[in-house]
Amino acid sequence: MLWSNALIPTQKESPADAVAPSHVLLLRAGMIRQLGAGTYTYLPLGLRVLKKAERIVREEMDDAGALELLMPAMHPIELWEETGRVGTMGEVLIKFDLGGDRKVCLGPTHEEVITDLARAFLTSYRQLPITAYQIQTKFRNEPRPRFGIVRTREFLMKDAYSFGADVEQLNASYEVMYEAYCRIFDRCGLPYVAVEAESGPIGGDASHEFMVPSPSGEDQLIHCGKCGYAANVEKAEVGTIDDPSPAPGDVPPPSEVETPGKRTIEEVASFLKVSPEETGKLLVFLADGKPVAVLVRGDHEANEGKVRRAFGASTLEPADAAAIQKATGAPMGFLGPVDLKLPMVVDQSVAAMPRVVVGGNKEDVHLKDVVPGRDFPLDRVLDLRNALAGDPCPRCGATLEVGNGIEIGHVFKLGTKYSDAMGAMFQDAEGKTHPLIMGCYGIGVNRIVASAVEAGNDKNGIIWPLNLAPYEVLIVPLQVDPDGEVMAKASEIAEALKFAGADVLIDDRDQRPGPKFKDADLIGVPLRVVVGDRGLKEGKVELKWRHEAEASTVPAEGAGLAVVEKLIAARQAEDRRVAQRAEQRAARQGQSA
Amino acid sequence: MLWSNALIPTQKESPADAVAPSHVLLLRAGMIRQLGAGTYTYLPLGLRVLKKAERIVREEMDDAGALELLMPAMHPIELWEETGRVGTMGEVLIKFDLGGDRKVCLGPTHEEVITDLARAFLTSYRQLPITAYQIQTKFRNEPRPRFGIVRTREFLMKDAYSFGADVEQLNASYEVMYEAYCRIFDRCGLPYVAVEAESGPIGGDASHEFMVPSPSGEDQLIHCGKCGYAANVEKAEVGTIDDPSPAPGDVPPPSEVETPGKRTIEEVASFLKVSPEETGKLLVFLADGKPVAVLVRGDHEANEGKVRRAFGASTLEPADAAAIQKATGAPMGFLGPVDLKLPMVVDQSVAAMPRVVVGGNKEDVHLKDVVPGRDFPLDRVLDLRNALAGDPCPRCGATLEVGNGIEIGHVFKLGTKYSDAMGAMFQDAEGKTHPLIMGCYGIGVNRIVASAVEAGNDKNGIIWPLNLAPYEVLIVPLQVDPDGEVMAKASEIAEALKFAGADVLIDDRDQRPGPKFKDADLIGVPLRVVVGDRGLKEGKVELKWRHEAEASTVPAEGAGLAVVEKLIAARQAEDRRVAQRAEQRAARQGQSA
Repeated sequence: MLWSNALIPTQKESPADAVAPSHVLLLRAGMIRQLGAGTYTYLPLGLRVLKKAERIVREEMDDAGALELLMPAMHPIELWEETGRVGTMGEVLIKFDLGGDRKVCLGPTHEEVITDLARAFLTSYRQLPITAYQIQTKFRNEPRPRFGIVRTREFLMKDAYSFGADVEQLNASYEVMYEAYCRIFDRCGLPYVAVEAESGPIGGDASHEFMVPSPSGEDQLIHCGKCGYAANVEKAEVGTIDDPSPAPGDVPPPSEVETPGKRTIEEVASFLKVSPEETGKLLVFLADGKPVAVLVRGDHEANEGKVRRAFGASTLEPADAAAIQKATGAPMGFLGPVDLKLPMVVDQSVAAMPRVVVGGNKEDVHLKDVVPGRDFPLDRVLDLRNALAGDPCPRCGATLEVGNGIEIGHVFKLGTKYSDAMGAMFQDAEGKTHPLIMGCYGIGVNRIVASAVEAGNDKNGIIWPLNLAPYEVLIVPLQVDPDGEVMAKASEIAEALKFAGADVLIDDRDQRPGPKFKDADLIGVPLRVVVGDRGLKEGKVELKWRHEAEASTVPAEGAGLAVVEKLIAARQAEDRRVAQRAEQRAARQGQSA
Repeated sequence: MLWSNALIPTQKESPADAVAPSHVLLLRAGMIRQLGAGTYTYLPLGLRVLKKAERIVREEMDDAGALELLMPAMHPIELWEETGRVGTMGEVLIKFDLGGDRKVCLGPTHEEVITDLARAFLTSYRQLPITAYQIQTKFRNEPRPRFGIVRTREFLMKDAYSFGADVEQLNASYEVMYEAYCRIFDRCGLPYVAVEAESGPIGGDASHEFMVPSPSGEDQLIHCGKCGYAANVEKAEVGTIDDPSPAPGDVPPPSEVETPGKRTIEEVASFLKVSPEETGKLLVFLADGKPVAVLVRGDHEANEGKVRRAFGASTLEPADAAAIQKATGAPMGFLGPVDLKLPMVVDQSVAAMPRVVVGGNKEDVHLKDVVPGRDFPLDRVLDLRNALAGDPCPRCGATLEVGNGIEIGHVFKLGTKYSDAMGAMFQDAEGKTHPLIMGCYGIGVNRIVASAVEAGNDKNGIIWPLNLAPYEVLIVPLQVDPDGEVMAKASEIAEALKFAGADVLIDDRDQRPGPKFKDADLIGVPLRVVVGDRGLKEGKVELKWRHEAEASTVPAEGAGLAVVEKLIAARQAEDRRVAQRAEQRAARQGQSA
């Protein structure tokens, strides 16, 4: 492809409203263009990257035995009424009338549609397990689209759904998808981490998010630099916290202090001139409808998933003021663990405190000098709060780090949520009917593109991974006379590369080397080949990898084959890296099994 | 791929509401499933066909030098206000709010969006000509979706747009696209005709529709069986019609007859006991705002494009009763050519009539025994009406036929309609600005699938063209014991085919031969290979082409390579057919040039 025919409108200036590196650079490199709020056109160069990501996703899905199909974007609203999600999705679900009383919505995801398909066609255990997928455009009325193509209202998603007869089949399908996801993101050259994610009462611990660390990410990610443990904030465990302080033998007994109208931790700490870390926060929840209490440090956040599991409940919701008053006899804002008449669990960070300021279970009263274990029981001390930077890793005890990440994929054990709601049943060998056991597996294809740029860029532009790059090789002839020796050599190299199945772009623009090199760095093609009069006189052609600082040269004679060799070596290195990572995963699984 | 893993829910019964063969057979073959009104899920087998069609379209677009990009489905309504199409598209355009005052629509086509892109990026003559395309999902609120995937509310379209600096560039881009379309439909094995279509005042005669003749088609198509001339009804010319009757020397002079309240041709003919073919119909139009008249036979329909061109006008609209009264002094329903004070053109079929009944230009009066040329002038006799079956071909004089067709593609010279409306201007070499000259080119990818089935089926099911077939080869082992000799031979053949890059489906279901053969015919895979115990004992494997009545056998020993040979020969024959048709087109062009 010749640059002058390729519609690559590069821009020198950074767009004023763009902050994320992927947003800035994809715009500047002429790869995308904004059409409306949260909608982008993919220009030829950007589409080539998107298509390469799509192809990798498709190949790995096919290899994993998933069946490709294609479901419509417009869904009858009735399907979404069956699962109740027409309400729970809220404004994000785009709904409209098609005249008469025909209401439709634009699918933000396809559980309803695939479950409708499954109840029609998957009726026997003989057909199970089965996994189907599509690569299809989703629509969500995101209240705040941002970071360019990271969060948009219209995006390309690979969504897969597995159907099994039992939990073993679900687990097997889940593992196959998990491994396929790792291979996809490895092939795309992304520095991802697979984090455990909270998945609600059905999935148990069976949900993972695949995240690429990036300041432009909207999700928080807890990560251990030492052992590789990673989880999202909802799910991350906190390692054991022991009491670091000497036993507080000389703490006086608890005493009441008046705290008129001081209900929040900030108000109480400020009023009593202590720091929030020296206070305790007692929260009341309804676990399967019954009131329970949890005590966490004032500056910590209780983790509802951990609390729910601590009480073995399937549902957990915060109690309102009336329910709290009824359950404890005390007003909200002044609750405390001393003489509490509720089942209570205590976070391990509280148990490690020498003394703590807590509510007095009376209006406008707090207690100070309360000693855990002395003044309230420590029968059930657990990890009950969200993890924070600096906490110990639950696996190895090293220090956890916190960063942002872009969620590029999510695998999820759905269980029977949708098959129950929609009556998607199969018959077992004995003719008994059961609901299908489902999993769902999503990848944001556009986010693969965005996160590759987030992870691969420098001040000059994008540094594409080889397997995603719009072109693998950019040939830059410095003199573009079509009858000249330089263009002849450029064409010769391009021709040789064609036979290696390479994607080649030739910058045939009649411009000075400076702007051409600047554009080359900006669009980030991995291998740059410079052919010029002077070099040819010296019998040389210059090669430079985008990710390396230094250029090298090869003899002009036979330069085509020399470039082909370099490219093939780079492709092989990519393949080896992907294979090695798969081996490492297999070895880890062998160890843990 | 094994049938038992492939999710092919074939059905014995025809769905009650399906009438078109493509609709019935795609449903029965388990290739599509209806989700809502005008929306269909493509099951794995159907999606394979759709993807093959998409790939052929993409390859030919790329070969034609068109650049692929991808534009959003959701468009800001403001763009559609710039061209006024938010009004003219009517209810077909799906519009909704995204909260606040942000209004969007779902693109039924993308002229507005691409013109917006062009005005941003195509600003110099140096960038022209250029053609860009996308393969993307369109949405239209069709009032009456029908014939399965022929007319739906959501469909996959290839839409391309060319931008040129002058008419020569437009013509060149148009010709390249026209040829690419022929190659696409030839490769897809479709019996298409390219028909001239009416394109309004800008395009002149530069619009073609590509149609596949089919009773399920919604468009009418005029066609000459002898010379291949084809056009749609709006555009089709009528060959020369000479006066077949002897000169009516003995026709008495015109006489007035009272026709109280008889305004329509049917009323007048019935009242006067003549046939509509013996009457004449005078119509008044406003050509560029000025009243003009056209006289056609009572049973014919005036063709507005032909009338407009006859008067060299850019716009033509029917005059209303008031305008008619003003222009002619006569009431609507009683107009006639005798003593008419308006510029008038006469259709050649009227000129060929020995005598004619026409309006008397007075309320409740008609004239009989009016002789063309004697009682009103025949200064301008032209082809001014819609062509009909039985008319002479304008090229060769043979008899024209009329049939229905499915429109699968449309190429269209837009001119400056959109660039004028949206201010998409480029600078020429002298720095002067001009509007970009555009063409647009659409293909309904789903309709390729539907029309292939319309054109290729018999009472047993689908007969896919080789290049579109979901699988090229179906291997049917009659005994499916995985350790048996039959399955071993089936696998051996499949393995050999894999190395020829063939798509192979193995029917591994443990069923009797009858249902397996029925399903094989239904899904229409081109080459069926039957392996059975008895055949293997005789040292034979059976081959049968879906489009042939008789099966043949090859030796079981080396059957894999024998099947590969047959398949490769069939692929080569397809390629030769496509190449021959291209040569024929080139030869015809050489002749006409």
